[in-house]
Amino acid sequence: MRLRHIKGAKEKIEASPYFLLEETIQKGNWHQIFQNTNPIYVEIGMGKGQFLYEQALQNPHINFIGIEKYDSVIVRAIERIEEKPLSNLKMIRMDAEHINQIFDHEVDKIYLNFSDPWPKDRHAKRRLTSPHFLKQYAEISRHLEIEMKTDNCHLMEYSIITFHEFGFQFKELFLDLHQSKTNIIMTEYEQKFVKLGKPIYYICVMK
Amino acid sequence: MRLRHIKGAKEKIEASPYFLLEETIQKGNWHQIFQNTNPIYVEIGMGKGQFLYEQALQNPHINFIGIEKYDSVIVRAIERIEEKPLSNLKMIRMDAEHINQIFDHEVDKIYLNFSDPWPKDRHAKRRLTSPHFLKQYAEISRHLEIEMKTDNCHLMEYSIITFHEFGFQFKELFLDLHQSKTNIIMTEYEQKFVKLGKPIYYICVMK
Repeated sequence: MRLRHIKGAKEKIEASPYFLLEETIQKGNWHQIFQNTNPIYVEIGMGKGQFLYEQALQNPHINFIGIEKYDSVIVRAIERIEEKPLSNLKMIRMDAEHINQIFDHEVDKIYLNFSDPWPKDRHAKRRLTSPHFLKQYAEISRHLEIEMKTDNCHLMEYSIITFHEFGFQFKELFLDLHQSKTNIIMTEYEQKFVKLGKPIYYICVMK
Repeated sequence: MRLRHIKGAKEKIEASPYFLLEETIQKGNWHQIFQNTNPIYVEIGMGKGQFLYEQALQNPHINFIGIEKYDSVIVRAIERIEEKPLSNLKMIRMDAEHINQIFDHEVDKIYLNFSDPWPKDRHAKRRLTSPHFLKQYAEISRHLEIEMKTDNCHLMEYSIITFHEFGFQFKELFLDLHQSKTNIIMTEYEQKFVKLGKPIYYICVMK
């Protein structure tokens, strides 16, 4: 997700107690950071954080970490949590490419919501469900579980195949999530797509 | 597919050289029946035979066999082929449940087009992609390859999972087939769904 430049976003984010600077994180220390031994769920590409905030609110005994590349969206997530504080949610500005530098078999679930589909074949490696990333997720996870949602049928086709070939167990699969389930915690994108009547694809896999 | 009763359908079918009586078929003899050693592709639930007829027309070096339960639809398929004869297409009236009684490691591909989704959980075993049927397909096949199309998202979800758990290789997967491919040989159902703008799900798996 890319937004226009927001003046002062970088300073605002870095001053927040909910934000952690990538460079200061030592992997293996997450239970110390949260001051508890609760499970750790990570969303890669949290955007403005609506989904993750709602998850953290509804699940106080789980620690949530949002990863996002752009200051201009992280600042919206920071504003939301500063308005209504939660102790089980932290945010990091970084590229998913380095995720194995900040976790060491500590993550219990990974959320991939409406990730960039990278439609060109030559960019397939950049998709967050490419074998390249799946290997990294195995390195950072204590329990390897991935929940993915997308409106992009080609990303879903690709992901089903990479999950299949990586030897995951398919826990749940929906090709029209909102037709099959209710009380779904939605991202902002998802709300728009559902209003337009577009199907949302969902898969949960584990090892 | 079920149609109203058609008077004389049974007699018309059984008099046709394109029709084989289930009881007279001895498994292991298919190359004798076709008088050649070409590959054998089977459609289970051929309906009125539009898809299978077109396949047989475009692929003269493959033998096609259509299986269907109801006289009232088989008779339409018989009428089509009697109008424009083809030597590489035969039809059988039978329940897929007995398919391993008429083939013995002779089939090279199985088509499952718009099969009954059997939506109730307690009927899952009757779905043509249930583990119960997949075991039978392994027994009848020389090369185990299945091509499936459906408009029913729940049948597709179920089938992806059973194929995955059965250890198939996923050769191709499309969640909106007509958006991704052209020159598709369509069934009569499929033509209707495509006109309505409904996505067609497609998967090809092999072992």
